[in-house]
Amino acid sequence: MHIQHSDIKEFSRFYRANLINCLTGAKPAVLIGSANKEGKTNLALFSNIIHIGADPAMLGYLQRPIGESGDTFRNIMETGCYTFNLVTPEIVEQAHFTSAKFSTSVSEFEACKLTPEFVPGFTAPFVTECRVKIGLTCVEVIPVKLNNTTLVIGSIDHILLPDSILKNDGNIIPEAAGLVSAVGLEQYCSLSTICTMSYAKPDNLPQF
Amino acid sequence: MHIQHSDIKEFSRFYRANLINCLTGAKPAVLIGSANKEGKTNLALFSNIIHIGADPAMLGYLQRPIGESGDTFRNIMETGCYTFNLVTPEIVEQAHFTSAKFSTSVSEFEACKLTPEFVPGFTAPFVTECRVKIGLTCVEVIPVKLNNTTLVIGSIDHILLPDSILKNDGNIIPEAAGLVSAVGLEQYCSLSTICTMSYAKPDNLPQF
Repeated sequence: MHIQHSDIKEFSRFYRANLINCLTGAKPAVLIGSANKEGKTNLALFSNIIHIGADPAMLGYLQRPIGESGDTFRNIMETGCYTFNLVTPEIVEQAHFTSAKFSTSVSEFEACKLTPEFVPGFTAPFVTECRVKIGLTCVEVIPVKLNNTTLVIGSIDHILLPDSILKNDGNIIPEAAGLVSAVGLEQYCSLSTICTMSYAKPDNLPQF
Repeated sequence: MHIQHSDIKEFSRFYRANLINCLTGAKPAVLIGSANKEGKTNLALFSNIIHIGADPAMLGYLQRPIGESGDTFRNIMETGCYTFNLVTPEIVEQAHFTSAKFSTSVSEFEACKLTPEFVPGFTAPFVTECRVKIGLTCVEVIPVKLNNTTLVIGSIDHILLPDSILKNDGNIIPEAAGLVSAVGLEQYCSLSTICTMSYAKPDNLPQF
């Protein structure tokens, strides 16, 4: 099938949203935890997550235009801090339903039966049920004017994870970490390692 | 284990790179195809890929600081167009080794035994061996000054994919598409569907 630019415009809204959201393939499934100044917690599922750099260590997410929803972004602007929590297979259903449009007065932690957890001196909630939990301080907010979205970049303050999922070289074991990928807007997948590759150099190419 | 900001600074360069690149969990594995004005092709593996929006349909990738490598970015600046090709399990090894620092005169298509394919009126090469192939025109280049990287945003002109991997609602079937996730800098995983969820609304929450 060959779909062209003009075809995409003609698709129904839901067909287009499904197809285009699938084109980035295996996306991370991440719960972003935040709280307002009064300590009211919020939790929301994001898959538009991107590695920004390792040194300094920074991660980004793309914030949709702020409308009725947008508690995550408002909390980050209020307090400066938030958490990334990698979804595991056991909590896929709860994680998915954090994306329902609850009113601001409802915490998705309570509505979706997930447990907030705190680190001293850091006001944003982590998710107890997750194995990889990251605490971030917002360091830059970059507008994407083309569609009124915002790239929110955070510096990594805290990494919480079980020793058992970490290799000696700093790599996380995908199965032990229970990594989950979101494909499109409604499909969730578990991961199985195919292979681990050596550092690629022109003079060590394998026989393809 | 609780790793703090000051610990990250103290890690060796490779340990830090491995760990921080793993924190975004399941990342897309995408081959970006491009060509210079003379038609010399280039192919490079990226996992820092992000969905920007469905309407208009746009995808982004994060370009590392341009140094010796950077043919992809230079080609995009020269011609305006490029392709995203989703890696499949069969070509993981070839895809990984496109990241070796070949000189500009070498096409990774030849070095890594992958086949360029063209669509009339579009000068960037697609990868024949991939199942999901996307042709993009660069519409915005946003500097991330914090670490001298660049968010490159493209508008979708072409989508090439087999009918058999597409559902009636526009969703791509992860296993049929052969989606692959990159975890960190050297681990590659296949995907298995855990579940497909319905649209989340506060009044249709399941019993958790």
